[in-house]
Amino acid sequence: MTLDVTLRAATAADYDSIAAVIDDWWGRPVSHALPRLFLDHFHATSTIAEADGDLAGFLIGFLSPSLPDAAYIHFVGVHPDHRRSGLARLLYERFFELAAADSRTVVRAVTAPVNERSIAFHCALGFTVSDPVPGYDGPGDVKVRFERPLP
Amino acid sequence: MTLDVTLRAATAADYDSIAAVIDDWWGRPVSHALPRLFLDHFHATSTIAEADGDLAGFLIGFLSPSLPDAAYIHFVGVHPDHRRSGLARLLYERFFELAAADSRTVVRAVTAPVNERSIAFHCALGFTVSDPVPGYDGPGDVKVRFERPLP
Repeated sequence: MTLDVTLRAATAADYDSIAAVIDDWWGRPVSHALPRLFLDHFHATSTIAEADGDLAGFLIGFLSPSLPDAAYIHFVGVHPDHRRSGLARLLYERFFELAAADSRTVVRAVTAPVNERSIAFHCALGFTVSDPVPGYDGPGDVKVRFERPLP
Repeated sequence: MTLDVTLRAATAADYDSIAAVIDDWWGRPVSHALPRLFLDHFHATSTIAEADGDLAGFLIGFLSPSLPDAAYIHFVGVHPDHRRSGLARLLYERFFELAAADSRTVVRAVTAPVNERSIAFHCALGFTVSDPVPGYDGPGDVKVRFERPLP
């Protein structure tokens, strides 16, 4: 399968097209985890993938303002028709490059422990995976942390 | 009523004490709106208020990485025992000062239109209030935008 997509920096205006599809792409309600502020304020370090002008995927990430060594990936989505195409890897690699260009030395992300596909994907990309952390995003929540050094 | 609190910059470690109380302070589940990433990555521009060593209030805000003129306030809470004391105003004024010190010229925030107390508070602090924006934080969501110039 060839990867016939174009990548570009996101803009604040991309929020609406992302918010319109993510519940469908995930197959469950997830839009509460992506309020508009993430596109308004982190679009310059976020990426939109398009195929024939349609949204094929996206990565929302930022360079940590408070931790000068760190970059953080908050949300990544790939259209069901474009899964297993290498697009998610491409989105991550673009983020690694822009984070390294700003002298960031570590990229972090989190997911729920049940999300085995995400854990396998991050391992394959060179992230370490923590044990589950109880109370991570508040009482009752559990997450695993991903961390990957940047060259 | 005198204001016997001390203000300090937040640290990432403050997340747990905030997450432990916010549902109680709001009287409804709100902790989903404050994942740990906000303290991990924006603590340097966030403020903790303490009274006798206990959490009395907090403001979570950041200087927009993608919009060099803008600063954004995401979440502000005051302990029920400290309401109507002027503490929220103090937290906002500290944020205005640190944003202005970084040459930011506008502070933004949002709330739900039903949140009349928040709207009145922001008006009193010099924010303009937009009409309700349908679909603001995703399909079905409605918010009003607050905006205040900085000197």
